[in-house]
Amino acid sequence: MTPEEFRQIGHALIDWIADYRANLRGYPVMSQVAPGDIKARLPTTPPQQAESLDNLVAEIGTAIMPGISHWQHPSFCAYFPANAHFGSVLGDLASAGLGVVGVSWQSSPALTEVEEVVTDWVRQMLGLPEGWLGAIEDSASIATLVALLCARERATNYSAERGGLQAEAKPLVVYGSEQSHSSVDKAALLAGFGRDNIRHVATDGTFAMDPDALRRAIAADIAAGRKPCAIVATTGTTATTAMDPIGALAVIAREHGLWLHVDAAMAGAAMVLPECCYLWAGIEQADSVVINGHKWLGVNFDCSLFFVKQADALTRVMSTSPSYLRTSSDDKVRNLRDWGLPLGRRFRAMKLWLMLREEGVAGIQARIRRDLAMAQWLKRAVERAPDWRVVAPVPLQTVCVRHEPDGLAGEALDQHTLTWAERINRSGRAYVTPAQLQGRWMVRLSLGSSTTEQSDVEALWQTLQWSVAE
Amino acid sequence: MTPEEFRQIGHALIDWIADYRANLRGYPVMSQVAPGDIKARLPTTPPQQAESLDNLVAEIGTAIMPGISHWQHPSFCAYFPANAHFGSVLGDLASAGLGVVGVSWQSSPALTEVEEVVTDWVRQMLGLPEGWLGAIEDSASIATLVALLCARERATNYSAERGGLQAEAKPLVVYGSEQSHSSVDKAALLAGFGRDNIRHVATDGTFAMDPDALRRAIAADIAAGRKPCAIVATTGTTATTAMDPIGALAVIAREHGLWLHVDAAMAGAAMVLPECCYLWAGIEQADSVVINGHKWLGVNFDCSLFFVKQADALTRVMSTSPSYLRTSSDDKVRNLRDWGLPLGRRFRAMKLWLMLREEGVAGIQARIRRDLAMAQWLKRAVERAPDWRVVAPVPLQTVCVRHEPDGLAGEALDQHTLTWAERINRSGRAYVTPAQLQGRWMVRLSLGSSTTEQSDVEALWQTLQWSVAE
Repeated sequence: MTPEEFRQIGHALIDWIADYRANLRGYPVMSQVAPGDIKARLPTTPPQQAESLDNLVAEIGTAIMPGISHWQHPSFCAYFPANAHFGSVLGDLASAGLGVVGVSWQSSPALTEVEEVVTDWVRQMLGLPEGWLGAIEDSASIATLVALLCARERATNYSAERGGLQAEAKPLVVYGSEQSHSSVDKAALLAGFGRDNIRHVATDGTFAMDPDALRRAIAADIAAGRKPCAIVATTGTTATTAMDPIGALAVIAREHGLWLHVDAAMAGAAMVLPECCYLWAGIEQADSVVINGHKWLGVNFDCSLFFVKQADALTRVMSTSPSYLRTSSDDKVRNLRDWGLPLGRRFRAMKLWLMLREEGVAGIQARIRRDLAMAQWLKRAVERAPDWRVVAPVPLQTVCVRHEPDGLAGEALDQHTLTWAERINRSGRAYVTPAQLQGRWMVRLSLGSSTTEQSDVEALWQTLQWSVAE
Repeated sequence: MTPEEFRQIGHALIDWIADYRANLRGYPVMSQVAPGDIKARLPTTPPQQAESLDNLVAEIGTAIMPGISHWQHPSFCAYFPANAHFGSVLGDLASAGLGVVGVSWQSSPALTEVEEVVTDWVRQMLGLPEGWLGAIEDSASIATLVALLCARERATNYSAERGGLQAEAKPLVVYGSEQSHSSVDKAALLAGFGRDNIRHVATDGTFAMDPDALRRAIAADIAAGRKPCAIVATTGTTATTAMDPIGALAVIAREHGLWLHVDAAMAGAAMVLPECCYLWAGIEQADSVVINGHKWLGVNFDCSLFFVKQADALTRVMSTSPSYLRTSSDDKVRNLRDWGLPLGRRFRAMKLWLMLREEGVAGIQARIRRDLAMAQWLKRAVERAPDWRVVAPVPLQTVCVRHEPDGLAGEALDQHTLTWAERINRSGRAYVTPAQLQGRWMVRLSLGSSTTEQSDVEALWQTLQWSVAE
């Protein structure tokens, strides 16, 4: 493709994206295709000759769009908000156009230095202490894995440099809560701890980790000859946005020399509001925290910000310096390959840079305050309605609900819940995610899409009532 | 930013990228800034109010471009080719514009199904057996880590489900060659094996792993009570593109029940040429292989293709299924969160899809044949010149050279080598990477940028001679 052809198709694609974003309300939120439908539209063998992409926009419309669930839609209330603001789309485009790879500072100094600057902007926005350093990881799953690897190595006095985890005498134990994200278990399993050494600590009435239960679990492990290693606390759990008490957990971590990692993947964005920061009070005592730029904050996937209190605890575990990567600048610069799992990285800082400038701190604050207010409106509407129940506290943008008509309980209630949620999703009017809480299904209404306005939330509430009618 | 503003800035950015790509030769290949130069151009605190991005293109020019090393430049011969063809840039833009996240099939069926289809296209292009399945991982480092985690779990009968690696009686051992990429060591360390249990097997005269040396290492480990676990073979090592003998290593792997992972990150692209496939003869006997779409093939970073012979050996280790991710389609579809480390994924298949169609198999083959021919031309030119030496075989696109004037040896020769390489890089005329081979520095001339033509290679050879003149 020549630059001129790229220019022409690129303009058409930009126009198409602008139109798509302007007309989101016209799409069914959740894709309505059946398994295999999209595959069936594509050739089973690769093209032998070059094909023209002149009709790219039309082709995306026919081959791809039916298989898209619209995360930017005002009625997208599933999973988590994954805002992909225009500034970040432009940043990603600039990054792709430049086509650079970060394998060392020298391989594109701007890639490294912009990442240093903008991760520090986010640190300031979140009120994290000076001296904490940040880097962009692929996702919160990866950041949590990185944290547990650092924890494992610190707890074993860097056993990787010797016989590895397999040479350790005492089993190391990781503590999350029964509401922790699945990525915590996955990270602990991948890091080699083993399922027998993962504790799901009990939660209190707000679904937050109970520090007393944590103390008891740690004492039992020590008594049994095991070695507590790390606590993964959550600021804003996936099911209900519950807030583990970071300050209390930090006291316990300090007493036992444990690594305290805080998973604030979605909810961390709320910490740009001074009035929300009490929700993670004590955060300055943690060892690491992850917050996703690619959720509520506004940067398109992927862009996870991982902050550490002591950078050398990270770089000691992640560093590599083979001859073909060494440069004469190495002692004067940050080499981001030493800050995470992969060697290479995209110029992802570009999209974070542009997104933050596009909206500004004040703009982000106003948007998040709007979302919090809309969630409170929805909570009150549900609470006032007969047979409806809000089943968890609503500290942020997620409202967890159940429709409990007279006489329905147990499995029958579960069936009812899954049925009306599926009815909504199949209708295309909204997209919601069921989840289990205390063994029973409920439905998460996760607000926070930038495009969601008060009228959309009111329509959502109408849709909920429609879904259980008849 | 409104859709109309996005349209306007987007068009300007597309134009800028088209111009940039058309005018690459005007830039110094390696960025000429000093550490801190780019940082100094950016504010130290985040913007409070929204800023206009109307002048984005001009701003990129002043704030970012001086800190860019130009990977798409015709004289970029450092590290590895990282082609970012226009089709892939458009695919990435479409993906960012849609702003979808893959956390389950349902969360955007097209994201999953296009990935299934196009990874299978690549499987066919590489001549990998039917039945092997592929998924896109972030990078080859991650794919190798995934492979070693699968190997660890298979060798321990899935110890992660019990006491983890720390409960295993015998230390597990991983085998690479002394020329393996640094990511192999890093992956083994992160997976918990420990440095004591990583073997750097000796290589032969072509810098390929010596199967007899591997046999001896395995025998010694077994005799010492350790348990061999995995072999990481390389098709195209980083320093010299050496080719480990996959067939011979596969025999050993089978004898001992070891996982055989093949790192063909860069060189795998050459396997689209029938005449190159002998270089990894026996590949069908491996357990997994990684080839980067984002190197020689033409897709912008990141896009690593990881293929496995037995998918359940991968998904058993990577699966998670918390309630909030379960859907009614789960038994009928692939959930790609079970195929790698992170939960979420971008719609990366889009850029692979468009890049393959933009060029077609025949187009890729022609380009790679061109690169092979240019490398042979350069090899012959260097060989014919007095005082110059080609220090390793040239099976592909990398030519490893040294200038050895009379009387120079040892550390003085190293100093000379690093001096002329730095002189080239500082001149902006080309970008090359020094590396150590058998303890001595040499310079890798890694061709394979799509923009590199025969005249550029001839100019490179002129630049090399200039760098040692005077």
